[in-house]
This record gives sequence, structure tokens and C-alpha cells, in this order.
Amino acid sequence: MEKENKINELSELGEFGLINHLTEKIKLNNSSSEYGIGDDAAVLYYGNKKTLITTDLLIEGIHFNLIYTPLKHLGYKAVVVNLSDIYAMNGQPKQITVSIAISNKFSLKTIEELYEGINLACKNYNVDLIGGDTSSSITGLAISITAIGEANKNEIVYRNGAKENDLICVSGDLGGAYMGLQLLERENKVFEANPNEQPDLIGYEYILERQLKPEAKKNVIEELNKANIKITSMIDISDGLSSEIMHICTQSKKGCKIFQDKLPVNNETIRMAKELNIEPIIPVLNGGEDYELLFTVPLNYHDKIQNINDITIIGHICKEEENKLIITNNGTGIELIAQGWKSF
Amino acid sequence: MEKENKINELSELGEFGLINHLTEKIKLNNSSSEYGIGDDAAVLYYGNKKTLITTDLLIEGIHFNLIYTPLKHLGYKAVVVNLSDIYAMNGQPKQITVSIAISNKFSLKTIEELYEGINLACKNYNVDLIGGDTSSSITGLAISITAIGEANKNEIVYRNGAKENDLICVSGDLGGAYMGLQLLERENKVFEANPNEQPDLIGYEYILERQLKPEAKKNVIEELNKANIKITSMIDISDGLSSEIMHICTQSKKGCKIFQDKLPVNNETIRMAKELNIEPIIPVLNGGEDYELLFTVPLNYHDKIQNINDITIIGHICKEEENKLIITNNGTGIELIAQGWKSF
Repeated sequence: MEKENKINELSELGEFGLINHLTEKIKLNNSSSEYGIGDDAAVLYYGNKKTLITTDLLIEGIHFNLIYTPLKHLGYKAVVVNLSDIYAMNGQPKQITVSIAISNKFSLKTIEELYEGINLACKNYNVDLIGGDTSSSITGLAISITAIGEANKNEIVYRNGAKENDLICVSGDLGGAYMGLQLLERENKVFEANPNEQPDLIGYEYILERQLKPEAKKNVIEELNKANIKITSMIDISDGLSSEIMHICTQSKKGCKIFQDKLPVNNETIRMAKELNIEPIIPVLNGGEDYELLFTVPLNYHDKIQNINDITIIGHICKEEENKLIITNNGTGIELIAQGWKSF
Repeated sequence: MEKENKINELSELGEFGLINHLTEKIKLNNSSSEYGIGDDAAVLYYGNKKTLITTDLLIEGIHFNLIYTPLKHLGYKAVVVNLSDIYAMNGQPKQITVSIAISNKFSLKTIEELYEGINLACKNYNVDLIGGDTSSSITGLAISITAIGEANKNEIVYRNGAKENDLICVSGDLGGAYMGLQLLERENKVFEANPNEQPDLIGYEYILERQLKPEAKKNVIEELNKANIKITSMIDISDGLSSEIMHICTQSKKGCKIFQDKLPVNNETIRMAKELNIEPIIPVLNGGEDYELLFTVPLNYHDKIQNINDITIIGHICKEEENKLIITNNGTGIELIAQGWKSF
């Protein structure tokens, strides 16, 4: 009966009705957003600036589990992970498009919650929602977001500009999002075994927030630009530090040394790792989804960097033939391995 | 055993390997494509032009049926339907991003076929593939494409510019793609009932191509611009003539009269409709997926329009209070109804 109501709600609205309902309050705030939702395409005008484009496709059961992911957080995160890519080019995100495919297991209310999260992220990062596509799906939820941003000419930072002796820096701390996910998975299993058992999440608010409601590091970019620091290469940490640092090294044709004892990690991350018998270095190197920024700067910015909160120097760039190494706490050099995504 | 091989192929390649494999031959041809695949975001530079953005999300089982859709055609069509939206703004498509989610029922070969179609469309329309996302899915195939294009300032054509007495024009013919789909569905049912039965598609090549391998009407836009015809409003026909003309009228705050006897329709479309006991006017008005252009021009362009091949004048714009009517062959005026998409 409830299911029938759900189907009726969405089918009564129809495609155009649903789009209108979800987008009627949307206003455009950026001067580069000339025309948003309502025509065959959106119109942007970046004048003399360069345009940045990035896109992500999120699939239920692969990228998120709706059993423990609030829809509002999911919408928020889906936007933020794309904005993070724009910041990682030293750009400013200005617009997004959002496409969703929903099955009839979703009520109008759940779709509204998803859009609440999307709209909140747009508000917090001053980004305009300018278009998208809404369709049905046979099975789960799919969300595809494209973010569009701007950058001044000559200020775009690629992955390929790291030079020998550059400092390798990272914002925030690492591994928290992954340990948050492990905690959610554990509690989900407990719940499946005994639905009367309440999930035990107290004391782990930080890593849960890292997993469920990450933020893009807009402030880090602002601080670096304010301090006139020339970034030579940059990437955001979505697949894990190890994998990202290898992208920078490979594209810059360089090697690197990073030091285990320098890697920033939150206490909750360490505690959770120990509770689950995982070495904390594993999530720190390969956890992913932290959306922190990994970047390199010339050595002479050492003091300026140290004056900025929330940035840690974790190593330096070497010649290509010196390989990509992590120096462990006992002084041994171990080759880094890219994990990437192995979900096939 | 075959399934195991498939999984191994993709899992051996991994995410980065698959992306490299699919994109290694991609070159950028447009001067506005500054940097494509390989960083957090692509970089575009449109200088003094305006940027157009449109996006579509295609889901297996909703938008396509792989039983009768060759992967190469699917890739081609997925690109073309987005380019069509850029042309419908009087713009030139220049770049696309492509995201796919694939389940392990797909082999590397099928994914390659999909990309062959994508690459062919890029080549035919001179569009650069600049980025995307590749992930796995639990069930079927999902394809999300975003097209980016450019337009000169003041030359963009919206849906809201139709004026009273403007001529309503349409390119090509209507209803073919829908009847092609009906034919494929019928033959699929025959095949399901008796797998030894060969599908009978002879004599219906045109409507099959309309469904499986549509083209965007680049040439129509070129002809109109060459003839210096001022288009007042435009939309591409993806949901059916009826629905699209109502978008133009609603957004322009106008009414319209279109004439049944003027509506362009191919003989194969009529033949197939009759074979299936469908009134041909149904697919012509509500069929969708024709990707023809529907547009309005001031009355004084009447002769110029008539000199262009492949364009038919089907009616004119009226005052809003005169409603949106189709005048049937017996002279009766009937209110148009938007069909849109009712797949929920």
C-alpha cells in the first residue's frame, strides 16, 4: 500500500512536474551563470577566464549504501566530491548539473531530501544548479554530477608540474573517511544479525562525518592564494594518498619520499583502526574519500606553508630514478603501491 | 567460464587501466579544448564566446534494451542526443564528457564497441572527448554524457522567443524513431517466444536507423545561418512534437496552430503504424526521439525557408488565449497534450 502511494506520487507529478517541483526555488547567483534550467542547454559566460569541467557518476550499492547513508548527506557529498576536483585545479566552482535515475522504491520525500543536500552544498560553496536530467531506473539510484568552474589564465595547477626538491604537502588528516565507512559497515552487520540492536557510534562522530558529509577544501586554496604561494602540482585525495601521489609523480616524471611519521591522522581514525585490528597506516595511505588536497610547492615556501593551519609537509619530490618511497618509522624505504579502485 | 574471463579482463585492467585503454588514442582537435583527460578537471577556453552545457543520463532497461541495441550504436546515439541539445540553442558542440557504470556481465570487447560508437560520433561532429568517470554497477549499464558547446553572443536561441504570427517549422520527418522502436519490440517478442525465428526487419531500414542511429541536425543549423534567417525560438524533438511545441508556447507565452496535413512523415513510418494498427498521427505527435529541430521564424522568412531542403512549415504562432491547437484533416481544432516521459 505504501509502495503504491509512492509510485502514484511520482507518476502523478510526471517527469516535468518532478523537475519543476525540485527546481522551482533555484536562483542563479554567479554572474557567469547566464541561463540555467529550462532550455535545451544552460548558457555560461566566462569572459576571459578558463572553464574547468569535471564529472562523477555515483551508483547505489557501489558508491553508497542507502541503509546507513542519509539521502541529504548523499546529495551533499555528491556535489562536494565534484567541487573538490575544481579546487584541485586551483579553480573556483561556479555551476553544477545534476542528473538522477530513481526507481519506484523512492518516495517524493526521499528525492526531496536528496535535493536538500544538493541545494545546501550549492549554498555553502556558492555554486549554481543550472541543469540536469531526471529519469527512472529499474533498480537503484544513480546520480551523475558535472561541476563547472573558472580559473584565471596561468593560474591553473595541473598534476604534472612537480619539480625536484619541491615540498609535498597535504591538507587536513587522512584515513578518517575510510575508517568511518568501516564503522558503518560493522554496525550494519550487527544490525542485520539483530535488528533490535542499536548501532554504537558514540565517540566516532568525526570519522562518521568524514565519510558521510565531507567538505571540499576551499579554505586551503584561499589561504595558499592569499599567501602568494606558487603551487607546482595538485590533486585531491579521492582514491587514497598513495594512489594520488603516484599520479603526481608519474605525470611530473619524478620520484618522491614521504615520511610515515609526518602523515597527519586523527585520533579517532587510529582508535577505530586498532579496534578493527587494522594498521592505521593502511587507511592513511589507501583509504580514499578524504577529499583533502595533495600538492607540491618549491622549497623556498617552507616557512610560509608552516604558518598555514591545516597543512602538513609530508615529504619531498626526488628524481624519477629514486622511485616513489614511503620512509617508515624505522627508517626503511618501501615502494608505494597505487590501490585505485578495484570494484570490478 | 566465459563469465569468469570477462570479470578477469576488467579486473586485471582495473579502473585506471580501463580508462587508459579506452582513451589512449583520443586527441583534442578544437582550440577551445585546452586540456582533456588526465587531471582532476578538463580545461576549456572559450575566450569571448558563451558556453553551452547539457547533460543526459541513460539507464539500461529504461532508455535502451541491449537485446536489440548494438553497443556501437548506443554509444553513437548517447553522444548525438546531447549534441542535438547544443544545436537546438544555435550553438556548436565542441566537447563531451562520458561517464559509464558497467556490471561484470560486460566484456572488455563490448565496452570497446560502446566507445567505438562514442568516438565515431565525436569524429563525425568534430567534438573532443575531454573527461569522464568509469565505475562498476551492480546491475546494468548506465551512461552519463555532458556536452559542452559554444555560441556567439546574441546568437543563442532560447525556447521563449516565439512571437505572434511566427512560422512554426520542423526539420526532417517525425515519428520514425518511435515506429522503429515498436518494430524492434515486436520482433523481440517474436524472438522470445521462438528463438529460432529470425527477426523480420526488411523494408524498414529507415525507421530502424531513426531509432538506433539518429543524427543531430547540424546541417539544418548551418543552412539557416547561411541564409541569414533569424530564428526566434528553437527546441529539439526528443519527447515528441506535441510536448516540444508546448514548451515553446508556454515559455514564449503564446498559443499555436499546427496543421495535420503539413506534418512531415516518412512512408515507412506510415506503413509500420498501419501494420501495428496505430494511427500515424500518434507517433508523429508523441513519438519522440526523432531529434529533429522545431523552431519559429518571423513570417517574412517564408520564401527563404521554403528554399531550404528538409524543412517544413507546419503552422504558426498565435496569441496565448487562442490555445495550442492542431487542426486535423477535417478542419477540427484539437488541443495539444504534452506526453513527456511517464516512465515512473
